Amino acid sequence: MQERRPTASGVRAAAERIADAVTKTPLLPLDWKGRRLWVKAECLQQGGAFKLRGASNRLLQLDAAGRARGVVAFSSGNHAQGVALAAQRLGIAATIVMPADAPAVKVAGTRAAGAEIVFFDRASESREAIGARLAAESGATLVPSFDDVDVIEGQGSVGVEIRDQLGAPPPMVLVPCGGGGLSAGIALALPESEIVIVEPEGWDDMARSLAAGEIVPVAEPAPPTSCDALQTKLVSPLTFAALSEAGARGLAVSEEEVAEAMRFAFRALRLVAEPGGAVALAAVLAGKVDPPEGSVIVVSGGNVDPGLYAELLSAG
Amino acid sequence: MQERRPTASGVRAAAERIADAVTKTPLLPLDWKGRRLWVKAECLQQGGAFKLRGASNRLLQLDAAGRARGVVAFSSGNHAQGVALAAQRLGIAATIVMPADAPAVKVAGTRAAGAEIVFFDRASESREAIGARLAAESGATLVPSFDDVDVIEGQGSVGVEIRDQLGAPPPMVLVPCGGGGLSAGIALALPESEIVIVEPEGWDDMARSLAAGEIVPVAEPAPPTSCDALQTKLVSPLTFAALSEAGARGLAVSEEEVAEAMRFAFRALRLVAEPGGAVALAAVLAGKVDPPEGSVIVVSGGNVDPGLYAELLSAG
Repeated sequence: MQERRPTASGVRAAAERIADAVTKTPLLPLDWKGRRLWVKAECLQQGGAFKLRGASNRLLQLDAAGRARGVVAFSSGNHAQGVALAAQRLGIAATIVMPADAPAVKVAGTRAAGAEIVFFDRASESREAIGARLAAESGATLVPSFDDVDVIEGQGSVGVEIRDQLGAPPPMVLVPCGGGGLSAGIALALPESEIVIVEPEGWDDMARSLAAGEIVPVAEPAPPTSCDALQTKLVSPLTFAALSEAGARGLAVSEEEVAEAMRFAFRALRLVAEPGGAVALAAVLAGKVDPPEGSVIVVSGGNVDPGLYAELLSAG
Repeated sequence: MQERRPTASGVRAAAERIADAVTKTPLLPLDWKGRRLWVKAECLQQGGAFKLRGASNRLLQLDAAGRARGVVAFSSGNHAQGVALAAQRLGIAATIVMPADAPAVKVAGTRAAGAEIVFFDRASESREAIGARLAAESGATLVPSFDDVDVIEGQGSVGVEIRDQLGAPPPMVLVPCGGGGLSAGIALALPESEIVIVEPEGWDDMARSLAAGEIVPVAEPAPPTSCDALQTKLVSPLTFAALSEAGARGLAVSEEEVAEAMRFAFRALRLVAEPGGAVALAAVLAGKVDPPEGSVIVVSGGNVDPGLYAELLSAG
């Protein structure tokens, strides 16, 4: 258990630390039911998702000895690419533990960033155990995808940018949620905003945890989902506490609502959104939430296999 | 013949005039062959292409009587949507003359912005004649897609933004070219930059005009092209003069090079680019030009039918 907890000032410091390492992603206008909303297009981040932020914040704070020992991470793909890219730029060796069924585009992106990839079977093996073993063997630093103060504070830089870009905190921010690193960081950065996290149906453990006032895991058996980036079965005390203290609430969206949001992003925003990146947009389009004028919808990632994307567009 | 010609100061004034009406589109980093290049993602503009800029600059300068008489434009789709959107926001009635084979997504976007659409047959009818007749009948103002000082100066705001975002003019800007409104405007905004315009093979009349030192039309019969937005058979003296005086040169790309650029934009930039919007990126990826460190590639539009896009991704 880490003693330090993520804080608003930690998020602000992270945003300054990583400013030169990440893209300040645009806020794109979306006129919806007579209201002007904003889409924070984090799918345009380098590596195709917000993950470069947390990874950069963590790796930039490693000392020379730490950098020389390398880093290890486990991820279905977006955190993998974020860590690989951040490590490559700092000249740090990265080993990434990925599920064997990770989207090919994410495996290719991770490999292109120079990382070594170790595959595991999502059903029978524990990526946490493999990651911990690799770290122990090599002395490498394990970079968690969300259960880490520096990672959460780095992701929170999205919220710092939103405030800068709007000149004020928005009334509501809708955020895709897996382990909760992005939404917890944004909640810390924007304490005046209502935070609504969105998850795939059957994977809405953060929503149920927030409603219950304590961490509850995903109910087994969890249904299949296209949202590979949000398949987190248990959130972290760090992310849960930040969201809980912010008074955040959660929503869940169906597979068809996610597909429709991806098609909408294609035709109305000209953005490539991956399934997990589109869940917050899906909640708005499906009418599951009624965001006030000036609210922000985060589209958190855009790494999707072209075959799946083509199928989805053709089905629309 | 208009007496006034587009100027650098006119472009700067246009950029200020339209600042609140358009999105300041992002410059996205692209690491290519060891160099940092930038993609000006104008496909993220409202209406899905840069056209809102010129249309807004033109319409904002109409007086009350002119606004009351409405506007007319002819366009395969992007200029249509730009004019329709700008008119809708100013409460101006818009009639748009579109080819019967315009992409459905562009027709739908134009209609959604409240414009009346009049279709014509690209092979047998003249859109110029239809547009002029409609304007004469109604007293509406014809808004040309490129042969107009205010439209060119409005499109040039892309160049003003590029300079602001980089803090200096880039060494080279690569721009898709149909009639040349966008590239001429950018050339005026960035006189220190080398301007390279890119067209589809067989439609490279601006490239040949610049090489010849005089305007030459597209050689008939022109080949089929997926780049519906760049099917301009004759450029304008206004755009030709601006590009010629800037020392611009031109390149042409094949259908397959365009398709590959669209796939690259999907997987590496998470941007939806339409064929005509992707030609400058195609020229770089195909090695037809060697842009120096810090050069800018404009992706000018992202309105593409989902069926065509799905087919293209599946073929990759």
